[in-house]
Formats: sequence, structure tokens, C-alpha cells
Amino acid sequence: MNLDIRSVTVGDVHIGTGNPILIAGPCSVENVGMLREVARAVVEAGVSILRGGSFKPRTSPYSFQGLGLEGLKLLHSVGKEFNIPVVTEVMAIHQIEPAMEHADMLQVGARNMHNFSLLSALGKTDMPILLKRGFMATIEEWLMAAEYLVKEGNDRIVLCERGIRTFETWTRNTLDISAVPLARMLGGYPVIVDPCHASGRRDLLEPLSLAGLAAGADGIMLEVHPDPDKALSDGGQSLSIPEMKKLVFKLLKQSENK
Amino acid sequence: MNLDIRSVTVGDVHIGTGNPILIAGPCSVENVGMLREVARAVVEAGVSILRGGSFKPRTSPYSFQGLGLEGLKLLHSVGKEFNIPVVTEVMAIHQIEPAMEHADMLQVGARNMHNFSLLSALGKTDMPILLKRGFMATIEEWLMAAEYLVKEGNDRIVLCERGIRTFETWTRNTLDISAVPLARMLGGYPVIVDPCHASGRRDLLEPLSLAGLAAGADGIMLEVHPDPDKALSDGGQSLSIPEMKKLVFKLLKQSENK
Amino acid sequence: MNLDIRSVTVGDVHIGTGNPILIAGPCSVENVGMLREVARAVVEAGVSILRGGSFKPRTSPYSFQGLGLEGLKLLHSVGKEFNIPVVTEVMAIHQIEPAMEHADMLQVGARNMHNFSLLSALGKTDMPILLKRGFMATIEEWLMAAEYLVKEGNDRIVLCERGIRTFETWTRNTLDISAVPLARMLGGYPVIVDPCHASGRRDLLEPLSLAGLAAGADGIMLEVHPDPDKALSDGGQSLSIPEMKKLVFKLLKQSENK
Amino acid sequence: MNLDIRSVTVGDVHIGTGNPILIAGPCSVENVGMLREVARAVVEAGVSILRGGSFKPRTSPYSFQGLGLEGLKLLHSVGKEFNIPVVTEVMAIHQIEPAMEHADMLQVGARNMHNFSLLSALGKTDMPILLKRGFMATIEEWLMAAEYLVKEGNDRIVLCERGIRTFETWTRNTLDISAVPLARMLGGYPVIVDPCHASGRRDLLEPLSLAGLAAGADGIMLEVHPDPDKALSDGGQSLSIPEMKKLVFKLLKQSENK
Repeated sequence: MNLDIRSVTVGDVHIGTGNPILIAGPCSVENVGMLREVARAVVEAGVSILRGGSFKPRTSPYSFQGLGLEGLKLLHSVGKEFNIPVVTEVMAIHQIEPAMEHADMLQVGARNMHNFSLLSALGKTDMPILLKRGFMATIEEWLMAAEYLVKEGNDRIVLCERGIRTFETWTRNTLDISAVPLARMLGGYPVIVDPCHASGRRDLLEPLSLAGLAAGADGIMLEVHPDPDKALSDGGQSLSIPEMKKLVFKLLKQSENK
Repeated sequence: MNLDIRSVTVGDVHIGTGNPILIAGPCSVENVGMLREVARAVVEAGVSILRGGSFKPRTSPYSFQGLGLEGLKLLHSVGKEFNIPVVTEVMAIHQIEPAMEHADMLQVGARNMHNFSLLSALGKTDMPILLKRGFMATIEEWLMAAEYLVKEGNDRIVLCERGIRTFETWTRNTLDISAVPLARMLGGYPVIVDPCHASGRRDLLEPLSLAGLAAGADGIMLEVHPDPDKALSDGGQSLSIPEMKKLVFKLLKQSENK
Repeated sequence: MNLDIRSVTVGDVHIGTGNPILIAGPCSVENVGMLREVARAVVEAGVSILRGGSFKPRTSPYSFQGLGLEGLKLLHSVGKEFNIPVVTEVMAIHQIEPAMEHADMLQVGARNMHNFSLLSALGKTDMPILLKRGFMATIEEWLMAAEYLVKEGNDRIVLCERGIRTFETWTRNTLDISAVPLARMLGGYPVIVDPCHASGRRDLLEPLSLAGLAAGADGIMLEVHPDPDKALSDGGQSLSIPEMKKLVFKLLKQSENK
Repeated sequence: MNLDIRSVTVGDVHIGTGNPILIAGPCSVENVGMLREVARAVVEAGVSILRGGSFKPRTSPYSFQGLGLEGLKLLHSVGKEFNIPVVTEVMAIHQIEPAMEHADMLQVGARNMHNFSLLSALGKTDMPILLKRGFMATIEEWLMAAEYLVKEGNDRIVLCERGIRTFETWTRNTLDISAVPLARMLGGYPVIVDPCHASGRRDLLEPLSLAGLAAGADGIMLEVHPDPDKALSDGGQSLSIPEMKKLVFKLLKQSENK
């Protein structure tokens, strides 16, 4: 499809220009050592943006909640060291200011897609926003959430399809692959696919990433951990560093073939 | 079922003592005239708590967003005038302080059930909280959201079942009637049923309210408007004042029969 | 609601006349001893129709599939002995003829609601049909399935709401309580509620049955087993005989209060 | 993934050998003229199997129900004329015998995936079966339905993912792309993707077909009509002949690149 997608620039990376990009990194920033190890590996593999969570939204208040501001600073300095832009999630209005200082792109998580106060506040910044689809949100509601940003003046929006909640239980969520072409056609925003949260299964990351690119996605976002089985969050859906390298190689090759 | 429910007191109203109560009022506070008209009617009918929205979460940023602080002050003064406690929704942390000043109970809406920052902030207050179930949240996630309040020290929690999103299209959402006994048994909190948001249909409010009470609900919450067809929000699911009086009469009678 | 419901007569039982009736019996006919024990108990308790499965639709072909024709004959003779009409499920066209000979009402199960060949064949009989809602069917599709019967000449239809499939996992399905008034209003058929299949939980049968009646249901269908923990199918949602008696007593009392 | 898929042979076409195949044809056989026109075009384009419905399961009994046996004979003779194997749906046990005589592969539709009597009867034949996933069936239930065939002796099974029912309304169903690798890995059967029924939208057929192949599907099934806007069923999701040719060309090219 020959669409008019508004491309978004993050650091020196352009999303939505027809050349899919990769975002990768740990679910949570756990410490400087693991973050540097992952950053070095993803840069070597050809990934364009480093992700890492500092403020973590967790279903239970007793689960690991992230390192907060300290994690943000680590992410910033490691991004500088390896010369790669960084994206991190903000969960509340008061986190926007520090996150703007330390990150190149701000993510709104699935659970906050309907947090209209947060969206309006982000709309007043000029930061690129990675807006994840709520796992309970229709495509129409997702595009309306983007309008909360646009209304306040910020249209630097990249959408991220990360699966919706259905009755199927063999996957954590159901990747709505149709949402990729639909959100691009009807919203005009670049769309990234997150196969990790969509499936919750390491063994599906390759076929879902390939399917995402084939459906026209402008990028893929992956979770990587030096030792997935010891991750403080989301280990079961994270790639090890060698697995990440192999998959990134395959995805970059498919992107070139397009 | 002989359950150990933690009752919650709002003004001089006790919720969860085995004697179901009613909450009613307009979806949005639109002006002082309509609010006084509704307040007088609901008090006369035997309703225990007046509801009214000042900050409105709307799917589209271009829909009516509520009167904000002004609406809150109107709600407060009308509540005082008619000597009835008031409940209103807060959507963001900075709204908590003014809402505490002007309302007797604070509501967390379905779209914010996963807004963990907001929940944690409300957990630090001693206000009674009406915690609506997210329309695609499991009962387990709903009880976990309540834990965010409890963890910070606030266990004055009333849950509100307001329907979940399913494939059925003849109702706006699907009232999960099973969630009423389950959340009471497994959470130990009082549970209120909101048939208006659950169904989106005026013609279902009576059977769903009666079913809610029969399933053990500690109360029913209704939307009332002097002229539903001209309501700025949710008119199709609001009762007119005479309809409200008729239904409240029936519900109070059924409560006595229990 | 003052509705024009087409009542259906099964033996000497009238369904849909404003006086709710009860259907109860084992999920599967396992042997003559257990069936007689259950039949005696349900008749004593005031139940109007005895249910019992002979042909069982099971997800796995390796689960117990029912006694077939032998079960049907047992059901027939026990129904005669205790002077109570019997209902049983048919799963295929060739089962209709023997089932007509041995039962007073034929049930179409949830998995066959979209089996249009079976519906058309049943439409050519003059048997009362208990048409369960598919757990994946909208109310509109359910009423359309009833039209397959009506088109062939059979309008002796009783609908049965038995829960729909949603994302909630604490119940087997989600009882769609709104479907009770909607299917009655818009279809004009009597509607029975099946809380056992809807919830899969014995501890919810009482609140869901009471809610069903409060929402206007024309009857409740229950599973009973002399020793639920040893049942060959659906034990976890079956009542023991003393539990059944207690619940039936409560339901009949509530029906009288209406 | 290097999987052990049991390949299935239909006429001289092998499904599941690593070389994706295409199935195409009209939703319903409407008359000999349109069927010949479509058959000629799909054979020229490189499609391997011709599809065409004679017995049509329709939600409403008043919709077009197919030509029945006459349609079956047309399909058979046109298949012979153009030397291409044909697949058609059977909805009832009595249709199996004539369909075996006239078709090379028998399809079980989504609404009959839980029709265990039909599955058992098909299990007693040696025909290749195209088993569509029920639109609200879990992958586990789908594989269990296949077991009904296997148990009776027939393991010539090709699965077809055709979308599941979710809350999203911009597509008719939600293509569960994750089900493609999962059903292949865990069932060991070839899996075909049907983007027409999954989406109900002509504008999504290309991205969904490409995504299906990228996720590892063993084939794609498409609906084609000489004049989609005048189709007696499913016109909105059917391709015109020129659109089909363009898409088939693209899909065959992508298959070769693998």
C-alpha cells in the first residue's frame, strides 16, 4: 500500500519511511552491568533504538516496580555511551519531566492508553511518543487516544500493537495483525509490533516478527535479557543475547528484501 | 452467603452491612439547576448517595469533558443543601486534593483501574474509594488494583461491577453478574452494580438492578437526568426522574424483602 | 415487563406463563440406580422436568460419551415411574427419531446452535425444543437459530442462556444476565437460565439462579448428582441431592414472592 | 522452525511440504458460467485447488443457502475440465456421500468444528479434510476436534485458521496469526490461512496473506468472484479476478523467496 505515513524522528532514527527499524532492550533496567551488556549487543546487531523500563506498571503492587529515576539515569548514560537513542515508559504526569531529560522517546503503556490526563500532558511536549494499544482497546479508541496528543499539539506519534485480550489461553494476548495495516491506513501513523507482550512466548517471537513486517509494520520491538530465566520481569518472553542476534539478523535481511 | 464483608462508611451511610444502598445522580454535572432538580428527587426517593461527574474521561478529546473544579464545587454545595453525601470521579493525581475537599467518596473509573500511580496516591488518603472494574480486567486484576490502595494504607474500598467487554453487541458491555458474589467472597469488599454503563440501555436497568440485588450486591448505582435525551453524556442509558423514582421504589422494596 | 411470551407445554408443564419452573437432573445418565435416586429427589423437591444426557458432546473424543440409546430408554422409564416429563440432548439427525420416542423435550446443545442441518430437521417435528445459546453466539444469532426451527414449522421453542466465552477465567463462562430480558423481549420465547454450565462453580449456583429469576427468567436448569465428586462428567458444577433440595426450596419461594 | 508436519495430498497437490499452496474460488457456486470463469482464471494464475460452496451455512435461514447437490456436480465437472482438485464444505452426515463422489477434499466449517457427530463420520472416510477453526474455539479445542477424525482412522487433516471473535469491530473477526505456528508445532498438521473470513475486508487480504506466509502457513485460501458486488454471499471480502491474479502473483513470488 502506498500510504501517506507521517514519519517520526528519534535521535537520528527515522520511523515510518518504508525502512523498518528495530527497538530492543531489557523489560526493566535492573543494573548498569546488564544494561551495558544488552546495549553493546543490540548496537552490534543493528538495532536502532534501546528500550528499558524504569517505572514498571505491574498488576500486583508486590511485584518488582522498577528502579525509578535511578534506572532512567542509567539508561541515559548507557545510551550516550553506545550512541543509541533510548525509549522508556512514563506512567504518571510527574515522571514526564525527568523522562524528557533522560530519554529520546517516551512510551505510554497499554494500561495507560486510556489515561487521558497523562496523554494531554504528553501532548504539550514535543517528545516522540510510542503509544501502545490498550489490550482492551479497539483500533478506533487507540486512534482517539492519539488524538489526545494531537489536540495539544504533539503529532510525533508511533503506534505499537502489542496484542489484545481474547479467550485464547495458549498465548498471553492475541497479536491483532490486522491492526497493523488498519492503523497505518486509517491513522497515518507508523506502527511498531511488539511480539513479546503479544504472545508471552519466546518460541513465537520469530514467526510473529516476520508476520509483522510482512503486514507492513514500520518496526519490531523486542525484549532482551542476558539471562532471561533470572529476569526480574517478563523473562519468559525475553530473548537471550544470542537469540536476539539471530532474530535481528533475520529481520534486517527480510526488511532489505522488501 | 454469610460473608465477612468490610463495611465502608460514607458520610452517615454504611455500605456492606447487608442492607443494600442506592447511589444516583447525573452522569455529568451540567449546571446548578439540573443538579438541584436531580438531588431533590433522589433524596425524596430514598437514594443514599448523590453521584455527579466533574472530570469526565471521554474516548474522544472533542467530546464534552466535564465542568472540572466548578462542577466539583456545585456538587459539594448541592450535597450540603440536600444533606446527602456525594461521590465523584478523579482521573489524575492533581485532582485528588480538590476532590477530597468537595466530595465524600472518590471514584476510580474503569479506564483508570490500571492507573497504578493514581491508585497509589489514593491509597495515601483516608477517603472512601469506589473502584470500578476495568471493562477488560479479570476479577483477579480488579482485586489486585484494590491491593494498590491497601498497600498504601487505605482499605475503605467499595468495588463497582460495570460490565466487561465481550463480542455481544446488543449491549454496550456485558454485566458480569458472577463477579458480584465472587468479588465479595474472595475480596471481602462490598460490591455495587452499575447497570447503566454495563448495558447502555434504559430498558435493561430494571431487570439488571433486580438481578444485581438478587446476586448479593451491596448497592446499585444509577444515572438520572431531568431530560435524558438532552444529556451532554450517556443520555441513552440515563433514567428520567419519574423512571428513577419508580425503579428506586421497586429496588428498596426488594431490599426489604431479603 | 408485560411481554407477550409464547408459552410452551412439555407434558403437563407450562413454560413461559409467568410462573418460573425448574429443570434438574444429572449431566449424564450413568446407570438406573443413580437416575432413580435423583428423579425421586427432584420430584419431591418440586422440580417440574427431569434432565439427563444420553448422547454427550465432549471436547475430547477420549472423554465419556454417554450411554446412547440405552441411556435414553432409562430416562424414559424413570420419567414414567416418577411421572415427570424428561428432556435430553440430540446431537445428530439420526438421534432425533429415538429421542422423540423416549423424551418429552429435545435439547440442542451450545456446540450445535449453529448446526443448521440439525435445526432444520428438528423444525420438521412438533417436539418442544430447548435451544441453548452457543457460547460464542450473539443474541441475534441465537434468535436466528430459532428461526431455523420456525421456518420449518416448529415454534415450540424455549431458549436457554448458559454463559458466553469471555476473557474472565475464574468462571468457566460468563453468564450473560442481560440476554435473559433481551431474548424474551426481542424473541418472544421463554428463557431458562443454566447457572451450572455458565459458571462451572457450585458456589455460584445460588446467587446466579436468584439473579436469573430476578431478571425475569422463565425457569432455571440445574445439574444434580448423588455423589458429585464421582460424576463421570461436570461433577464440579453439580449439586448434591441435599444441596439441590435447599436451593430448589429457595427458588420456589422466591418465585412465589414475585 | 524445522517441524515434522504430516503432509496431505489432494489430487496431485501436496500440502505441508514447505512449499505453500493456494486455494481459491467463489464463496458459493452460483452457476456454471461464473464457476468456469473463476476456474480458468485461478488455474492460469497458479492456484492449486479450486474451492466452491454448495451447501452454505448461513446465520439466517432466509439467506441464500447454496445450490446443494446441483452445485456439487457443477464443481466436479468444472474441476475436471480445468484439471484442478476441488474442495467443498459438508454440513451434515448425509452430505458426505455425495460430496465424496464429487470433491477431492471436504471442508468442515467454523460453525461445525464442534459438531462431533459430523467429525466422527468424516473420520471413517479416507478423504482429506480441511478443518476450519471455530471462531470462538481455543487452539486446544481445535486440535481436539482433529482428534475426533484421527480416533476414527482419518489423519489426512489440514487445519484452517479463519479468525476468532473478539471485541474489535473494524474487522469481521480477528486473524489469530499466532495460531499458525502454534497449531503446526503442537498439532503437526499443515495450516492454511483464510484472510477473507478473518477480516471481511478486501483491503486487508494482501497484508494478511503475506503475514500468514511469513508466519509459516502452508497455504492461503481466497474467495474470488467475477463481480464481487453482485455475489450472492460474502461479496465484500471477495477479490475480483484481476485483484486475485495480482495477489496470487505476489504470494507465489514470496513463497519462492523463502
